Amino acid sequence: MNSQSSAVDSGSMTDIVSLCRRRGFIYPSSEIYGGLASTWDYGPLGVELKRQLQNRWWEAMTQQERNIVGLDASILMHPRVWEASGHVENFSDLLSEDTVTHLRYRWDQLSEECRATMQSPDGNPLSPPRPFNLMFSTHIGAVADDAARIYLRPETAQGIYVNFRNVLQSSRVKIPFGIAQIGKAFRNEIVTKHFIFRTCEFEQMEMQYFVLPEEAPRWFAHWRDKRLAFYHALGIRPEVLRLRPHASDELAHYAQEAVDIQYQFPFGWQELEGIHNRGDWDLRRHMEYSKKDLQYLEEAGRRYTPYIVETSAGLTRSVLMVLCEGYRLQQLEKEERTLLALHPSLAPITVAVFPLLKKDALPARAEKIEEELRKHYRTFFDISGAIGRRYRRQDEIGTPLCLTVDHQSLQDQSVTLRERDSMQQQRVKIAALRSSIDTLLAQWQPAHHQR
Amino acid sequence: MNSQSSAVDSGSMTDIVSLCRRRGFIYPSSEIYGGLASTWDYGPLGVELKRQLQNRWWEAMTQQERNIVGLDASILMHPRVWEASGHVENFSDLLSEDTVTHLRYRWDQLSEECRATMQSPDGNPLSPPRPFNLMFSTHIGAVADDAARIYLRPETAQGIYVNFRNVLQSSRVKIPFGIAQIGKAFRNEIVTKHFIFRTCEFEQMEMQYFVLPEEAPRWFAHWRDKRLAFYHALGIRPEVLRLRPHASDELAHYAQEAVDIQYQFPFGWQELEGIHNRGDWDLRRHMEYSKKDLQYLEEAGRRYTPYIVETSAGLTRSVLMVLCEGYRLQQLEKEERTLLALHPSLAPITVAVFPLLKKDALPARAEKIEEELRKHYRTFFDISGAIGRRYRRQDEIGTPLCLTVDHQSLQDQSVTLRERDSMQQQRVKIAALRSSIDTLLAQWQPAHHQR
Repeated sequence: MNSQSSAVDSGSMTDIVSLCRRRGFIYPSSEIYGGLASTWDYGPLGVELKRQLQNRWWEAMTQQERNIVGLDASILMHPRVWEASGHVENFSDLLSEDTVTHLRYRWDQLSEECRATMQSPDGNPLSPPRPFNLMFSTHIGAVADDAARIYLRPETAQGIYVNFRNVLQSSRVKIPFGIAQIGKAFRNEIVTKHFIFRTCEFEQMEMQYFVLPEEAPRWFAHWRDKRLAFYHALGIRPEVLRLRPHASDELAHYAQEAVDIQYQFPFGWQELEGIHNRGDWDLRRHMEYSKKDLQYLEEAGRRYTPYIVETSAGLTRSVLMVLCEGYRLQQLEKEERTLLALHPSLAPITVAVFPLLKKDALPARAEKIEEELRKHYRTFFDISGAIGRRYRRQDEIGTPLCLTVDHQSLQDQSVTLRERDSMQQQRVKIAALRSSIDTLLAQWQPAHHQR
Repeated sequence: MNSQSSAVDSGSMTDIVSLCRRRGFIYPSSEIYGGLASTWDYGPLGVELKRQLQNRWWEAMTQQERNIVGLDASILMHPRVWEASGHVENFSDLLSEDTVTHLRYRWDQLSEECRATMQSPDGNPLSPPRPFNLMFSTHIGAVADDAARIYLRPETAQGIYVNFRNVLQSSRVKIPFGIAQIGKAFRNEIVTKHFIFRTCEFEQMEMQYFVLPEEAPRWFAHWRDKRLAFYHALGIRPEVLRLRPHASDELAHYAQEAVDIQYQFPFGWQELEGIHNRGDWDLRRHMEYSKKDLQYLEEAGRRYTPYIVETSAGLTRSVLMVLCEGYRLQQLEKEERTLLALHPSLAPITVAVFPLLKKDALPARAEKIEEELRKHYRTFFDISGAIGRRYRRQDEIGTPLCLTVDHQSLQDQSVTLRERDSMQQQRVKIAALRSSIDTLLAQWQPAHHQR
């Protein structure tokens, strides 16, 4: 097994990876055993951040959309699915092996010189390149023969296509409509990199929108714009997001039109989400391989194979984007602080509650407030260390609000609420806490970005 | 591939499976290709039900518990993890093969007679039983040799144990504390059955609580009671839940004390969740195999290997329980209705909105109301069919409230709210809708159960 040596590309990526590990966002998987190449575990803060991002997507794409329903297909699917989709035949990288070290290289990533001379970067002879399928395979049932060979899904989309008819029959949806899904997929990538950006195990958030063929271009534009607006609404600055349309000669075999939404990561502009007009490619293939009718019959009598406009986002790389976007080192008057300026709806902890001191009735009063707030918010109680240090610890993990109980609280039933980005504090009555908190959270705007 | 032939054990299981498929809760996976043995896909309603159940567990176990943090470990882990856990060596069934048909049987499920005569149920000679490991294996990296053999995790718990040190170092938790996780696990079960009850791909909701060795019995009792109360709070009747303690001669190798929470499914009492006092077995094994120190150092200076009290629930079988518990056929005066009396917090749709008629200004007014409610609730808009039929369709999928816009609504800005279980309707002002809805949802009590 390789250890976790994924490339860190810039000062700020190093800082972010370090913060993630130190504060419990993301750990190398199986670390006590030396790690497993490019798999990562989400710690207490990371799992909450990922959950919230997932929830925002799910709400936006299902609850707020009358014509979109959800789905959760299994990871293990019938192997014919991957024949129909073309993955068994085509989902491969060309690899060439160093005949001495037995290290394998992606042919397209070897230098011109290595390819021309067929020599590895170590100067040894290379084997001729041969295709290597990226799907993980396993066997189901008691007999390990080829009949029982199945795959871990390399993408979630096929789970939607093979359920198109089930959803049609059970949900009374009418075209245009969409099916949304969040789930894991697996690719045996030889070259993984950039922390959680490209990993063998990852999560996708996909929506497949079924439309009249002639309306596909219009819906493509609709979803391109709407998906971009989704990131803006989460506080990602417009200047670090861009659309990159695919030229006609770089379109995937299934795509009639494609555009990537890219984010400017510390290691460069990279794809966050792909919007594709897939035409009727997928449903036609599944009709051919399954012999089932996947056409759509309109009330007016027209029968056709719908076109599909897909929005395919990476959940795990969205987590990385949010971390990169929020992370900054700020020079204050007397000190430097690390700030993770997350959108409040994504923050792992919403309100941290502190008694100013460990004495008098302060801890008990603070605990009582925290117990009440916990019913409505993700809270955290901290009693240890100077108050300034407690604030800094919350700034670093993106907690939008800190609440402090002091001696005045015992007198007049008020507390201070401190806002993370501005560090401004205000005095608030305990009886009005929830509305004060809700107002402050709703008012949040991404601050001018200073890295 | 076997088709979806999972046993249906009683009239009501047949009805529940049929409802699930017809209304879009659960479909056989890869159905257009004949299905894949015992894997299931969650449709539009099923995915919401599963999400809500998951969310209730997550809130109860993390947000509402000051001493429990979350985690999300990867499915692919270092293979040494499964040596330390004992799975490579011991996680197997004894199988015997019919030497003519090549069908394989679990030795412990063959009849006394088959075992004594070594004859299969078809009367053919059986091969001697041999152990068959239940872990799915695959290969990572470009070389398919044994060094790169990894497994799909057969349980989520190990992901917590191997991160014990990471969480300790990054989260400032102190014993007693817990780590909670929801995730998929995979077992190559030869005998799968009872719909989604026992499947090869399933989801677990687990919490591992790290305690002082001498306090483990007390925490075991604490979590046993608290977990049982969790199900009561979701409206499961106390008389169909029971605790089944394990006798000392049936304890698993890692367990010092164990109790199952069982539910009375239509196919009998079956385990829903296991509470185990695992002692220091897991951390000791991982210390031995990883050579890392996983002990806990108290401020007072005492150093020890914590004991672990585990609460391990099946998410997918909890979904089945909730469906079985809610499902009933009710004989009304003039007709029969199918009712899914789900707890409102679990219902896939919270409020269905109907215009009484498809004319006048009713549809537009109803749409406007639904658009407003959608910001706060999971809503559904339905305009087709007689109002009585629309109510029945919502009863069958467990929607707690239906809201109808009629001509009076246009006059006095009121609508009717109909409660699912009692079928009682009340007139409510549109301006007061949210508080009326919240009150009705909060008042819900499980009705007397009539199957």
